[in-house]
Amino acid sequence: MKRVAVFTSGGDAPGMNACIRAVVRGAVYHGVEVFGIRRGYNGMINGDIFPMTSHSVSNIVQRGGTILKSARSKEFMTPEGRKKAYDQLMSHGIEGLIAVGGNGTFTGALKFFEEYQIPTVGAPGTIDNDLYGTDYTIGYDTAVNTALEAIDKIRDTADSHDRVFFIEVMGRDSGYIAIQSGIAGGAELVMVPEVLTPIPEVVETLKQGWSRSKSSSIIIVAEGDVEGNAVVLAEQIREQVGVDIDMRVTTLGHIQRGGVPTAYDRILASRLGLGALEGLLEGQKNVMAGIVNNELIYTPFIDTIKLPKPINEDLLRMVRILSV
Amino acid sequence: MKRVAVFTSGGDAPGMNACIRAVVRGAVYHGVEVFGIRRGYNGMINGDIFPMTSHSVSNIVQRGGTILKSARSKEFMTPEGRKKAYDQLMSHGIEGLIAVGGNGTFTGALKFFEEYQIPTVGAPGTIDNDLYGTDYTIGYDTAVNTALEAIDKIRDTADSHDRVFFIEVMGRDSGYIAIQSGIAGGAELVMVPEVLTPIPEVVETLKQGWSRSKSSSIIIVAEGDVEGNAVVLAEQIREQVGVDIDMRVTTLGHIQRGGVPTAYDRILASRLGLGALEGLLEGQKNVMAGIVNNELIYTPFIDTIKLPKPINEDLLRMVRILSV
Amino acid sequence: MKRVAVFTSGGDAPGMNACIRAVVRGAVYHGVEVFGIRRGYNGMINGDIFPMTSHSVSNIVQRGGTILKSARSKEFMTPEGRKKAYDQLMSHGIEGLIAVGGNGTFTGALKFFEEYQIPTVGAPGTIDNDLYGTDYTIGYDTAVNTALEAIDKIRDTADSHDRVFFIEVMGRDSGYIAIQSGIAGGAELVMVPEVLTPIPEVVETLKQGWSRSKSSSIIIVAEGDVEGNAVVLAEQIREQVGVDIDMRVTTLGHIQRGGVPTAYDRILASRLGLGALEGLLEGQKNVMAGIVNNELIYTPFIDTIKLPKPINEDLLRMVRILSV
Amino acid sequence: MKRVAVFTSGGDAPGMNACIRAVVRGAVYHGVEVFGIRRGYNGMINGDIFPMTSHSVSNIVQRGGTILKSARSKEFMTPEGRKKAYDQLMSHGIEGLIAVGGNGTFTGALKFFEEYQIPTVGAPGTIDNDLYGTDYTIGYDTAVNTALEAIDKIRDTADSHDRVFFIEVMGRDSGYIAIQSGIAGGAELVMVPEVLTPIPEVVETLKQGWSRSKSSSIIIVAEGDVEGNAVVLAEQIREQVGVDIDMRVTTLGHIQRGGVPTAYDRILASRLGLGALEGLLEGQKNVMAGIVNNELIYTPFIDTIKLPKPINEDLLRMVRILSV
Repeated sequence: MKRVAVFTSGGDAPGMNACIRAVVRGAVYHGVEVFGIRRGYNGMINGDIFPMTSHSVSNIVQRGGTILKSARSKEFMTPEGRKKAYDQLMSHGIEGLIAVGGNGTFTGALKFFEEYQIPTVGAPGTIDNDLYGTDYTIGYDTAVNTALEAIDKIRDTADSHDRVFFIEVMGRDSGYIAIQSGIAGGAELVMVPEVLTPIPEVVETLKQGWSRSKSSSIIIVAEGDVEGNAVVLAEQIREQVGVDIDMRVTTLGHIQRGGVPTAYDRILASRLGLGALEGLLEGQKNVMAGIVNNELIYTPFIDTIKLPKPINEDLLRMVRILSV
Repeated sequence: MKRVAVFTSGGDAPGMNACIRAVVRGAVYHGVEVFGIRRGYNGMINGDIFPMTSHSVSNIVQRGGTILKSARSKEFMTPEGRKKAYDQLMSHGIEGLIAVGGNGTFTGALKFFEEYQIPTVGAPGTIDNDLYGTDYTIGYDTAVNTALEAIDKIRDTADSHDRVFFIEVMGRDSGYIAIQSGIAGGAELVMVPEVLTPIPEVVETLKQGWSRSKSSSIIIVAEGDVEGNAVVLAEQIREQVGVDIDMRVTTLGHIQRGGVPTAYDRILASRLGLGALEGLLEGQKNVMAGIVNNELIYTPFIDTIKLPKPINEDLLRMVRILSV
Repeated sequence: MKRVAVFTSGGDAPGMNACIRAVVRGAVYHGVEVFGIRRGYNGMINGDIFPMTSHSVSNIVQRGGTILKSARSKEFMTPEGRKKAYDQLMSHGIEGLIAVGGNGTFTGALKFFEEYQIPTVGAPGTIDNDLYGTDYTIGYDTAVNTALEAIDKIRDTADSHDRVFFIEVMGRDSGYIAIQSGIAGGAELVMVPEVLTPIPEVVETLKQGWSRSKSSSIIIVAEGDVEGNAVVLAEQIREQVGVDIDMRVTTLGHIQRGGVPTAYDRILASRLGLGALEGLLEGQKNVMAGIVNNELIYTPFIDTIKLPKPINEDLLRMVRILSV
Repeated sequence: MKRVAVFTSGGDAPGMNACIRAVVRGAVYHGVEVFGIRRGYNGMINGDIFPMTSHSVSNIVQRGGTILKSARSKEFMTPEGRKKAYDQLMSHGIEGLIAVGGNGTFTGALKFFEEYQIPTVGAPGTIDNDLYGTDYTIGYDTAVNTALEAIDKIRDTADSHDRVFFIEVMGRDSGYIAIQSGIAGGAELVMVPEVLTPIPEVVETLKQGWSRSKSSSIIIVAEGDVEGNAVVLAEQIREQVGVDIDMRVTTLGHIQRGGVPTAYDRILASRLGLGALEGLLEGQKNVMAGIVNNELIYTPFIDTIKLPKPINEDLLRMVRILSV
């Protein structure tokens, strides 16, 4: 393989730039030409493709977002779109792809391979950590630390005013960010999509805390909790508590996607970018590079898409113990 | 005066602990006994009053929130409440008060003095910076930097996805946080309560940016902007823009109240805490200590409550120039 | 076992407080009485031992340092010292110990057990990550991120002035902090005690960088690098480079020990604190709780003390590739 | 004036990029062509001069360092160097200059004007805050906060081990960083070049602290303190204390120059950059733009170079009171 291209797709995640850098520098090291594609599959379709050198990725390892920009592409879901993308890649002589993104990205790559036999190796770039085939995804550690910093700040106010705070963190289908930021932030309770937390149990936990004269409480709610989002939850709980408490809701929102990546994310992204590139050069295709138990492994896209990634129930048990 | 007490009241603000520390250490230095009152006027009413020493305020200069806790007191608005408060102060032999808070706090202190002649000197503790009589209030610099860090993170995502972001910051009646975080964050537009920004002007600004191929835009909206909050605004603008743009809204919320205070806030809080105490000892009463043009001054509560604090229109002009 | 005690010993590390909290809350949860011992073995000797409750560890999960204080104890190395310590423990009815520290701490515990049969379970608290039996030690992730933030700042200056910077990080016998902060910080070279980097190779790397028009370079040096510390190294290299370059040396020093712990460290510390306590209650003794491949395991003290923990040579290879 | 150029010179300071951005955007707004010069006077001599547009300064407001790079120029101190610089400026049609730097920079500009009548307006870019004619210099607020974060981390260790720490901060001729970071960091003592602190007084302060059972102490020492640097000082004090204390020294070093600028520095830099540009366009020359008492003023270079900027002795008094 003499010429490869790299792109980022789906929601941006801190560490994507470190990953791009590792792909590009790895290619230079191995004597392979490397191109960048802007705005994911859209750029592939539109030919927004350009050669990259070692200099192209200078001084980006510490930046949030992605210098290649990202987008979700409706056109790539159509046969016409994929045809255009293929023609563009051919006109640039590109023989293999590195895709940094999540399940949507990998689903597209798989479809594309079936039709045009362009091999892709993926790197897991998403803050949600909900991809099977890697212990951590790129951006997750930074997102957890961003959520944690916010929780630390909010606790100052909760303590000063003896308040109950419901803090909604990201995670539509996954409680990973919620559970880690909750344990680290000393939350009284963490509510995640994977496990039902009945509202009476929440009420009971709050009441027990007050009986031990805890004056403030923090409850972390994952975006996609089945009981409803944080605002709805707080309202239901207020009704059932039956006493007048000072209860506030805050939704952390988009700040969780950005920011300077942590050391962990930069190193993970570097390992996975280099691993994806070297996998591609060694003949891997339609697999995602991941780190499981500190080892680099490749998991077929079909598994990362289909297989669930269960959360660690030990950690949920720990929330309960640590808030006694 | 041989015995004074300090309390925090209203919304908590980073730097309040540095202020309490300066009051307490200042009192020790001047050989005056000093007490702390918990939860503002509520603690005064309930007798939650305790002696403080130099050790009581060790290792708190860097902490957000307030170790004395804060609350808004309905009972202090009644004559019965104030009578109880007076009796409690008398039973502890307290001759003067240091109140760290905002206009509600100072209004209460003034009423209290009229009835019971207990002198209070105030220190301006509020993140909103909307108090006449001081260039900066305690907590404002930290709140601006917290908002700014959030804006920096969101810009990563805005740039990566070519989006328009509306970011709502605190400031019900005041655009101070909005304008400073907006200039520092490189916002395209800042919308504040003090100055009407007609929606067509917003639309025009966005269109001009696109015509100069700006791919992303950040618009900062103060909570209390007359045109409505950020969600409502974004909806109206989306309709008037008439093209399909990727527009998001995020509300920073309570994170702006907490956090480790900046150097500026710790020094300001220290100067004002010491200044309030020394003012009280020298016979000042019903005044707020403030820093104007780097000088410590005392402004009558009645003026801090009644007089408006205009925002610097030069700064609004600057937003416009810097986003060309 | 009805009564246990926890202490911290050796150099302090961020996350020690989260670990203490997990021990205490875990004990409360399991219905076991728990005591704190101040200043490590010194406090054991002097009887600085006090009962702890759930409240004792409120609001400490986010604090650096250790609320139990730490010290190195010469007296505990003597039979007389250990006798006093034993008597103190007996007088408080303490049947088992949780020791948060490093190899010196565990060596002491082992000796103590031989003489007095008091069982100890350890938790690895040291920023250096040089303990066999756990993938990460408590405080390591925070120390790496602290070093990284410093490197990010210094790179601003290095780039602005086209300079070569030698940055010395902690790690007397171990290159863990150096290698992780070096990769994450985009360093051109990382020099560690475990692997000799000949000076001519450093000179060559710098020259190659200049030939590719890299204007600035960052070289990370672990404290204990065999070639000498950063100041000495820089001097030798300056002589051998033979051209006039703007070269600076900075030693990060003690800032690496403190600070608010990262999410990773708080969770790790919580898991290990709880794991150490539950191990002790289940009859473990003279072992250290660790996390290897995401699983909690117990390793005999004798192994943590004697067995080397090799650094990942893949990571050293990666530094080279990523700086092309 | 139809064409101006901007450059940065001397040590880099956080906020320089925000200043460059304000100059460039201001020029675009006022319909004036604007050029950038790289590496200060060296780039002027070598013709490293290029046109800048609004896009050239996108997304730099938050970055430390300077995109125009900086250098100290020996050649510009010679008549030949200045002749070359003049010729280069003429060949690009540049009629006026904006210089972001300190006294060395302004001295050069003054000499240059005498010989070639090219008007320069300066903006104060130095972390030391030692320039007459402005209350704050660009970079100072960030440097103080960086020093403060380091002090906060070190205090964790000082408290955990009952240690005395001497922390050396930047400031060769000026105690500004020392005094502000010292007050904000809760230091027991601050030693500055402007005021002699006799060593016996330091010893006395430490002893008094111990007598009040302060277990740890932080002493901030400005680089240029007349008594010698922190290492020397600590040694002398250790001898005079006469008891065995655990005393450590740490030098913060170059981290104080870099980093993401604070809100204050970005706004200050924006105001001064725009103010310098508008001053130049209105006919100002050989003056530095500054903010004094919240007002933009212009001070002749000759005054900024010759007049001393005294530190606020009230702040030194405050250190003493706050550490009782």
